[in-house]
Amino acid sequence: MGSCIFCQIIEGSIPSAKIYEDEHVYAFMDIMPVTKGHVLLIPKKHVENIYDFTEEDAANFFAAAPKIANALKDEFIPVGMNLLQNNGAAAGQTVFHYHLHFIPRYDETDGFDLAKWESKQDEFTPEKVQELAATLRGKISQ
Amino acid sequence: MGSCIFCQIIEGSIPSAKIYEDEHVYAFMDIMPVTKGHVLLIPKKHVENIYDFTEEDAANFFAAAPKIANALKDEFIPVGMNLLQNNGAAAGQTVFHYHLHFIPRYDETDGFDLAKWESKQDEFTPEKVQELAATLRGKISQ
Repeated sequence: MGSCIFCQIIEGSIPSAKIYEDEHVYAFMDIMPVTKGHVLLIPKKHVENIYDFTEEDAANFFAAAPKIANALKDEFIPVGMNLLQNNGAAAGQTVFHYHLHFIPRYDETDGFDLAKWESKQDEFTPEKVQELAATLRGKISQ
Repeated sequence: MGSCIFCQIIEGSIPSAKIYEDEHVYAFMDIMPVTKGHVLLIPKKHVENIYDFTEEDAANFFAAAPKIANALKDEFIPVGMNLLQNNGAAAGQTVFHYHLHFIPRYDETDGFDLAKWESKQDEFTPEKVQELAATLRGKISQ
Protein backbone atom coordinates (compact mmCIF):
# COMPACT_ATOMS: atom_id res chain seq x y z
CA MET A 1 0.00 0.00 0.00
CA GLY A 2 2.93 2.32 0.60
CA SER A 3 3.61 2.54 -3.09
CA CYS A 4 -0.02 2.92 -4.21
CA ILE A 5 -0.57 6.46 -5.50
CA PHE A 6 -4.23 6.47 -4.46
CA CYS A 7 -3.43 5.23 -0.94
CA GLN A 8 -0.96 8.11 -0.72
CA ILE A 9 -3.64 10.55 -1.87
CA ILE A 10 -5.99 9.25 0.85
CA GLU A 11 -3.22 9.60 3.44
CA GLY A 12 -2.51 13.12 2.21
CA SER A 13 1.12 12.46 1.34
CA ILE A 14 0.26 13.24 -2.29
CA PRO A 15 -1.95 16.30 -2.79
CA SER A 16 -5.32 16.06 -4.53
CA ALA A 17 -8.33 18.22 -5.32
CA LYS A 18 -10.59 16.52 -2.80
CA ILE A 19 -14.34 17.01 -3.04
CA TYR A 20 -15.63 14.49 -0.49
CA GLU A 21 -14.46 12.07 2.18
CA ASP A 22 -16.19 9.81 4.67
CA GLU A 23 -15.33 6.70 6.65
CA HIS A 24 -15.28 4.49 3.58
CA VAL A 25 -14.51 6.60 0.51
CA TYR A 26 -12.52 9.49 -0.87
CA ALA A 27 -13.50 11.53 -3.95
CA PHE A 28 -11.29 13.90 -5.89
CA MET A 29 -10.90 15.49 -9.29
CA ASP A 30 -9.13 13.42 -11.93
CA ILE A 31 -5.86 15.19 -12.64
CA MET A 32 -6.28 14.33 -16.33
CA PRO A 33 -9.95 15.20 -16.85
CA VAL A 34 -11.66 14.01 -20.02
CA THR A 35 -14.57 16.44 -19.46
CA LYS A 36 -15.33 19.28 -17.07
CA GLY A 37 -15.96 17.86 -13.60
CA HIS A 38 -14.34 14.45 -14.12
CA VAL A 39 -14.19 12.93 -10.64
CA LEU A 40 -12.79 9.71 -9.17
CA LEU A 41 -14.43 7.92 -6.25
CA ILE A 42 -12.18 5.42 -4.47
CA PRO A 43 -12.52 3.16 -1.42
CA LYS A 44 -10.22 3.98 1.48
CA LYS A 45 -9.44 0.32 1.87
CA HIS A 46 -6.95 -0.72 -0.80
CA VAL A 47 -8.84 -2.98 -3.20
CA GLU A 48 -7.43 -3.58 -6.67
CA ASN A 49 -10.60 -4.29 -8.59
CA ILE A 50 -14.25 -5.33 -8.48
CA TYR A 51 -13.31 -8.98 -7.94
CA ASP A 52 -11.67 -8.23 -4.60
CA PHE A 53 -14.56 -6.35 -2.98
CA THR A 54 -16.59 -8.04 -0.26
CA GLU A 55 -20.34 -7.42 -0.48
CA GLU A 56 -20.10 -5.09 2.50
CA ASP A 57 -17.18 -3.13 1.07
CA ALA A 58 -18.99 -2.78 -2.25
CA ALA A 59 -22.12 -1.51 -0.49
CA ASN A 60 -20.17 0.97 1.61
CA PHE A 61 -18.33 2.20 -1.46
CA PHE A 62 -21.33 2.78 -3.69
CA ALA A 63 -23.49 4.43 -1.01
CA ALA A 64 -21.64 7.68 -1.72
CA ALA A 65 -22.10 7.56 -5.50
CA PRO A 66 -25.49 9.34 -5.70
CA LYS A 67 -24.30 12.36 -3.74
CA ILE A 68 -21.20 12.71 -5.91
CA ALA A 69 -23.31 12.45 -9.08
CA ASN A 70 -25.87 14.95 -7.80
CA ALA A 71 -23.19 17.45 -6.82
CA LEU A 72 -21.74 17.27 -10.33
CA LYS A 73 -25.20 17.58 -11.87
CA ASP A 74 -26.14 20.57 -9.71
CA GLU A 75 -22.88 22.41 -10.22
CA PHE A 76 -22.14 21.80 -13.90
CA ILE A 77 -25.58 21.05 -15.37
CA PRO A 78 -24.36 18.28 -17.69
CA VAL A 79 -26.83 16.66 -20.09
CA GLY A 80 -25.66 13.18 -19.11
CA MET A 81 -23.09 11.32 -17.08
CA ASN A 82 -21.06 8.14 -17.64
CA LEU A 83 -19.96 6.09 -14.67
CA LEU A 84 -17.09 3.86 -15.72
CA GLN A 85 -14.88 1.48 -13.83
CA ASN A 86 -12.11 -0.49 -15.54
CA ASN A 87 -10.75 -3.77 -14.23
CA GLY A 88 -7.42 -4.92 -15.62
CA ALA A 89 -4.96 -3.23 -17.96
CA ALA A 90 -6.74 -4.78 -20.94
CA ALA A 91 -9.89 -2.90 -19.91
CA GLY A 92 -8.06 0.40 -19.50
CA GLN A 93 -7.13 0.28 -15.81
CA THR A 94 -3.92 2.25 -15.18
CA VAL A 95 -3.93 2.65 -11.38
CA PHE A 96 -4.47 -0.60 -9.53
CA HIS A 97 -6.57 0.77 -6.68
CA TYR A 98 -10.28 0.51 -7.46
CA HIS A 99 -11.65 3.78 -8.85
CA LEU A 100 -14.98 4.77 -10.34
CA HIS A 101 -14.91 7.53 -12.96
CA PHE A 102 -17.73 10.10 -12.96
CA ILE A 103 -17.68 11.69 -16.41
CA PRO A 104 -20.20 14.50 -16.91
CA ARG A 105 -21.33 14.80 -20.52
CA TYR A 106 -22.29 18.09 -22.08
CA ASP A 107 -23.35 17.30 -25.63
CA GLU A 108 -22.01 15.64 -28.73
CA THR A 109 -19.49 18.46 -28.98
CA ASP A 110 -17.87 17.72 -25.63
CA GLY A 111 -15.33 15.73 -27.61
CA PHE A 112 -15.35 12.83 -25.20
CA ASP A 113 -14.76 9.42 -26.73
CA LEU A 114 -14.60 6.52 -24.29
CA ALA A 115 -12.34 4.65 -26.69
CA LYS A 116 -9.79 7.44 -27.12
CA TRP A 117 -9.89 8.79 -23.57
CA GLU A 118 -8.32 12.15 -24.40
CA SER A 119 -7.66 14.26 -21.34
CA LYS A 120 -8.12 18.01 -21.48
CA GLN A 121 -5.30 19.22 -19.29
CA ASP A 122 -4.76 22.31 -21.42
CA GLU A 123 -8.29 23.51 -20.65
CA PHE A 124 -8.47 22.12 -17.14
CA THR A 125 -5.16 23.08 -15.59
CA PRO A 126 -4.33 22.01 -12.01
CA GLU A 127 -5.35 25.49 -10.84
CA LYS A 128 -8.68 25.31 -12.71
CA VAL A 129 -9.33 21.82 -11.34
CA GLN A 130 -8.76 23.08 -7.79
CA GLU A 131 -11.33 25.82 -8.43
CA LEU A 132 -13.87 23.27 -9.67
CA ALA A 133 -13.21 21.10 -6.61
CA ALA A 134 -13.82 24.04 -4.30
CA THR A 135 -17.25 24.70 -5.82
CA LEU A 136 -18.15 21.01 -5.68
CA ARG A 137 -17.19 20.67 -2.02
CA GLY A 138 -19.81 23.30 -1.26
CA LYS A 139 -22.47 21.21 -2.96
CA ILE A 140 -21.87 18.00 -1.02
CA SER A 141 -22.99 17.44 2.54
CA GLN A 142 -19.78 16.31 4.23
CA MET B 1 -43.66 1.19 -14.09
CA GLY B 2 -46.07 -0.86 -16.16
CA SER B 3 -44.46 0.30 -19.36
CA CYS B 4 -40.86 -0.08 -18.23
CA ILE B 5 -39.28 -3.00 -20.07
CA PHE B 6 -36.89 -3.78 -17.20
CA CYS B 7 -39.71 -3.74 -14.63
CA GLN B 8 -41.51 -6.22 -16.85
CA ILE B 9 -38.39 -8.39 -17.00
CA ILE B 10 -38.19 -8.38 -13.20
CA GLU B 11 -41.89 -9.30 -12.97
CA GLY B 12 -41.36 -12.07 -15.51
CA SER B 13 -43.87 -10.76 -18.02
CA ILE B 14 -41.01 -10.32 -20.49
CA PRO B 15 -38.58 -13.27 -20.64
CA SER B 16 -34.88 -12.82 -19.91
CA ALA B 17 -31.75 -14.89 -19.52
CA LYS B 18 -31.54 -14.44 -15.75
CA ILE B 19 -28.31 -15.22 -13.96
CA TYR B 20 -29.01 -13.91 -10.44
CA GLU B 21 -31.75 -12.43 -8.30
CA ASP B 22 -32.04 -11.36 -4.68
CA GLU B 23 -34.22 -9.03 -2.63
CA HIS B 24 -32.74 -5.91 -4.20
CA VAL B 25 -31.37 -6.74 -7.64
CA TYR B 26 -31.87 -8.76 -10.81
CA ALA B 27 -29.08 -9.70 -13.23
CA PHE B 28 -29.50 -11.00 -16.76
CA MET B 29 -27.68 -11.28 -20.06
CA ASP B 30 -27.83 -8.24 -22.33
CA ILE B 31 -29.89 -9.29 -25.34
CA MET B 32 -27.53 -7.27 -27.56
CA PRO B 33 -24.15 -8.32 -26.14
CA VAL B 34 -21.09 -6.31 -27.11
CA THR B 35 -18.79 -9.10 -25.86
CA LYS B 36 -19.21 -12.66 -24.61
CA GLY B 37 -20.86 -12.59 -21.19
CA HIS B 38 -22.24 -9.04 -21.34
CA VAL B 39 -24.54 -8.79 -18.31
CA LEU B 40 -26.88 -6.13 -16.91
CA LEU B 41 -27.41 -5.66 -13.18
CA ILE B 42 -30.55 -3.68 -12.29
CA PRO B 43 -32.27 -2.65 -9.05
CA LYS B 44 -35.72 -4.16 -8.49
CA LYS B 45 -36.99 -0.78 -7.39
CA HIS B 46 -37.59 1.37 -10.46
CA VAL B 47 -34.94 4.08 -10.39
CA GLU B 48 -34.16 5.99 -13.57
CA ASN B 49 -30.57 6.96 -12.94
CA ILE B 50 -27.78 7.49 -10.41
CA TYR B 51 -29.28 10.81 -9.30
CA ASP B 52 -32.43 9.14 -8.00
CA PHE B 53 -30.80 6.51 -5.80
CA THR B 54 -30.90 6.93 -2.03
CA GLU B 55 -27.66 6.02 -0.26
CA GLU B 56 -29.30 2.84 1.04
CA ASP B 57 -30.63 1.84 -2.38
CA ALA B 58 -27.22 2.45 -3.93
CA ALA B 59 -25.54 0.31 -1.25
CA ASN B 60 -28.06 -2.51 -1.66
CA PHE B 61 -27.65 -2.40 -5.41
CA PHE B 62 -23.87 -2.53 -5.56
CA ALA B 63 -23.47 -5.22 -2.89
CA ALA B 64 -24.20 -7.80 -5.60
CA ALA B 65 -21.67 -6.44 -8.10
CA PRO B 66 -18.60 -8.42 -6.93
CA LYS B 67 -20.35 -11.78 -7.17
CA ILE B 68 -21.57 -11.01 -10.69
CA ALA B 69 -18.08 -9.92 -11.75
CA ASN B 70 -16.46 -12.97 -10.19
CA ALA B 71 -18.91 -15.33 -11.86
CA LEU B 72 -18.10 -13.79 -15.23
CA LYS B 73 -14.38 -13.96 -14.49
CA ASP B 74 -14.51 -17.59 -13.38
CA GLU B 75 -16.65 -18.75 -16.27
CA PHE B 76 -15.22 -16.86 -19.23
CA ILE B 77 -11.66 -16.04 -18.07
CA PRO B 78 -11.64 -12.52 -19.57
CA VAL B 79 -8.44 -10.46 -19.38
CA GLY B 80 -10.35 -7.43 -18.13
CA MET B 81 -13.81 -6.08 -17.45
CA ASN B 82 -15.48 -2.71 -17.94
CA LEU B 83 -18.32 -1.70 -15.65
CA LEU B 84 -20.29 1.08 -17.31
CA GLN B 85 -23.44 2.88 -16.36
CA ASN B 86 -24.93 5.62 -18.56
CA ASN B 87 -27.16 8.39 -17.23
CA GLY B 88 -29.19 10.31 -19.79
CA ALA B 89 -29.65 9.81 -23.52
CA ALA B 90 -26.67 12.08 -24.17
CA ALA B 91 -24.50 9.62 -22.25
CA GLY B 92 -25.84 6.60 -24.14
CA GLN B 93 -28.74 5.55 -21.88
CA THR B 94 -31.48 3.88 -23.91
CA VAL B 95 -33.60 2.19 -21.21
CA PHE B 96 -34.58 4.52 -18.42
CA HIS B 97 -34.37 2.04 -15.58
CA TYR B 98 -30.94 2.13 -13.93
CA HIS B 99 -28.65 -0.59 -15.29
CA LEU B 100 -24.99 -1.38 -14.84
CA HIS B 101 -23.22 -3.05 -17.77
CA PHE B 102 -20.65 -5.76 -17.03
CA ILE B 103 -18.53 -6.05 -20.18
CA PRO B 104 -15.89 -8.79 -20.07
CA ARG B 105 -12.88 -7.95 -22.22
CA TYR B 106 -10.81 -10.59 -23.96
CA ASP B 107 -8.02 -8.76 -25.73
CA GLU B 108 -7.51 -6.00 -28.22
CA THR B 109 -9.09 -8.26 -30.81
CA ASP B 110 -12.43 -8.55 -29.00
CA GLY B 111 -13.58 -5.72 -31.24
CA PHE B 112 -15.26 -3.85 -28.44
CA ASP B 113 -15.24 -0.08 -28.76
CA LEU B 114 -17.09 1.80 -26.04
CA ALA B 115 -17.76 4.64 -28.48
CA LYS B 116 -19.29 2.47 -31.20
CA TRP B 117 -21.08 -0.02 -28.97
CA GLU B 118 -21.50 -2.69 -31.64
CA SER B 119 -23.56 -5.63 -30.48
CA LYS B 120 -22.69 -9.13 -31.58
CA GLN B 121 -26.08 -10.70 -31.98
CA ASP B 122 -24.95 -12.79 -34.94
CA GLU B 123 -22.40 -14.57 -32.76
CA PHE B 124 -24.43 -14.51 -29.56
CA THR B 125 -27.87 -15.56 -30.62
CA PRO B 126 -30.72 -15.69 -28.07
CA GLU B 127 -30.17 -19.45 -27.80
CA LYS B 128 -26.44 -19.03 -27.23
CA VAL B 129 -27.08 -16.31 -24.65
CA GLN B 130 -29.43 -18.63 -22.76
CA GLU B 131 -26.68 -21.25 -22.71
CA LEU B 132 -24.18 -18.75 -21.30
CA ALA B 133 -26.72 -17.70 -18.66
CA ALA B 134 -27.23 -21.30 -17.59
CA THR B 135 -23.50 -21.77 -16.99
CA LEU B 136 -23.27 -18.48 -15.11
CA ARG B 137 -26.16 -19.31 -12.81
CA GLY B 138 -24.19 -22.31 -11.64
CA LYS B 139 -21.28 -20.07 -10.68
CA ILE B 140 -23.25 -17.68 -8.46
CA SER B 141 -24.41 -18.47 -4.96
CA GLN B 142 -28.10 -17.66 -5.18
